Amino acid sequence: MSKTQITVEPGIPQIIIEREFDAPRELVFRAHTDPELVVQWLGPRELTMRIERFDARDGGKWRYISTDPEGNEFAFHGVFHGDPSPDSTVQTFEFEGMPGHVAMETLTLVERDGRTLARTVSSFQSVEDRDGMVESGMEHGVRDSGERLTELLETLQDR
Amino acid sequence: MSKTQITVEPGIPQIIIEREFDAPRELVFRAHTDPELVVQWLGPRELTMRIERFDARDGGKWRYISTDPEGNEFAFHGVFHGDPSPDSTVQTFEFEGMPGHVAMETLTLVERDGRTLARTVSSFQSVEDRDGMVESGMEHGVRDSGERLTELLETLQDR
Repeated sequence: MSKTQITVEPGIPQIIIEREFDAPRELVFRAHTDPELVVQWLGPRELTMRIERFDARDGGKWRYISTDPEGNEFAFHGVFHGDPSPDSTVQTFEFEGMPGHVAMETLTLVERDGRTLARTVSSFQSVEDRDGMVESGMEHGVRDSGERLTELLETLQDR
Repeated sequence: MSKTQITVEPGIPQIIIEREFDAPRELVFRAHTDPELVVQWLGPRELTMRIERFDARDGGKWRYISTDPEGNEFAFHGVFHGDPSPDSTVQTFEFEGMPGHVAMETLTLVERDGRTLARTVSSFQSVEDRDGMVESGMEHGVRDSGERLTELLETLQDR
């Protein structure tokens, strides 16, 4: 199985996440923009996620809440810049536990021989913000999400 | 008169713009969020700007068009993340002449002894995008805008 690549360079306020999926681009795109699919893979396995809103269009807002086994809640929200397309989905991202720190995420999907490379660039307001995100344990959630999305795409294609 | 500081560091996909204004923070904030004021200072002097929409609230969109003396048009648009406040105004920014390249701008206003330091951090998707913006002649527009806003704030306070 292909693995998630996470690039974190010293002094650069960005995180780049890349993973290849054995699925056509349109399906990977749907999995990122249809809330009924997003809820099935986004976030680490031990958290339960519920989506409050997810309006995947220019100016549309999204918000979701993740709950851990002890009942602690972690909420996130943002807004889409432009209408999402497989070429480019741009959205802002804010963890409500650290209000005022916002990132911008750009997802691009490239298909090659029926497989799809998903690349997400997260641009932060400062290197300190980026480092805080890395230290929060983000990597675990990103890797789990990648595995879960791989499984979901297999299930969707088996149907 | 205080001058605009523009910080462009090699390899860092950001531009930081700072300028101090001899005006209270609330007024500087209004000048950035009320379209009737924005249209009076934003952009280089030789261009004429018209604002098509400017909805300064969470998820609100903005779009403006600048026209040069030869009639060439340059359009820009974006969306606000969160409700703007003097502490933080976050918005995305895209020049329609270079579609698909998006930046996120964060404006913070700090008041000290009746003067206000305005700091804008623009975070780009890549260093190439940032360098493209610098090479486009952005600096001239930023400096003109700072001078024009200084003059507008003087006029507003003289009233």
